[in-house]
Amino acid sequence: MVDILHRVGIKAPLDRVYKALATREGVAGWWTTDTQGESKVGGMLKTLFSVDGKVLGGFDLKVLELTPGKRVLWQVVEGPPEWVGTRIGFEVKQEGDYSIVLFKHQGWKEPVEFMHHCSTKWAVYLMSLKSLVETGTGQPSPDDVVIGDFH
Amino acid sequence: MVDILHRVGIKAPLDRVYKALATREGVAGWWTTDTQGESKVGGMLKTLFSVDGKVLGGFDLKVLELTPGKRVLWQVVEGPPEWVGTRIGFEVKQEGDYSIVLFKHQGWKEPVEFMHHCSTKWAVYLMSLKSLVETGTGQPSPDDVVIGDFH
Repeated sequence: MVDILHRVGIKAPLDRVYKALATREGVAGWWTTDTQGESKVGGMLKTLFSVDGKVLGGFDLKVLELTPGKRVLWQVVEGPPEWVGTRIGFEVKQEGDYSIVLFKHQGWKEPVEFMHHCSTKWAVYLMSLKSLVETGTGQPSPDDVVIGDFH
Repeated sequence: MVDILHRVGIKAPLDRVYKALATREGVAGWWTTDTQGESKVGGMLKTLFSVDGKVLGGFDLKVLELTPGKRVLWQVVEGPPEWVGTRIGFEVKQEGDYSIVLFKHQGWKEPVEFMHHCSTKWAVYLMSLKSLVETGTGQPSPDDVVIGDFH
């Protein structure tokens, strides 16, 4: 088992960071504008990612946990085979002037090349989250930062 | 054992990407401008990172491998205790229009919070490497992107 781990500090109140992770509108502001569904425990979020108007693919996520000011946890139920069954968690906490996000994408079976790509791309999306909360503007798909041939 | 893994694709010839990883001048262009020492097998690279003219710390790296067009491998011999003994590897290869960098920072004993931070920060530095090789301008320390209270 290998995990993708990240940490960013966001200069904003904890409840605003939590809201950006725990609501459909929030997720659409930093990950992908095409985020559908309901962000409630037991509900599903459906995301799609596009380039030049063409859908590349997406993920269906079951919402496992929403603990205000603490944690958001999703399970991947549809998507690329490497992702299905994995869990994506965001733990939030206050440290001085910063709201800290500890990110874990756990349950990868093998450290395949696609996992290396997703690790880098998650960092880029977490910087988009930081930008959204601090400035009001994120960089979600389809206007996300391209990091290579895997997009 | 937990690893930090990343992958970026750079639109540039492989030898330019390799040079940015295998030479002191290259590393100074995307990681930290304060990179001293000699990038030769068995030699040492000494890096320092600063904020507002104040040195935060740095890493002494023994160069274990320099295989042109293939791989650069360092071992950390001085630095934060979590880093000492770990290995940082860059594997490069051509895929279509892209030169691919597969990055591995291996040998972390525990998935501590500092490791989460370093994972995100490595992604930011690899985007700086991509920018350096593609445009001629990277974003090395001390002008690197701040990602939170750990800098």
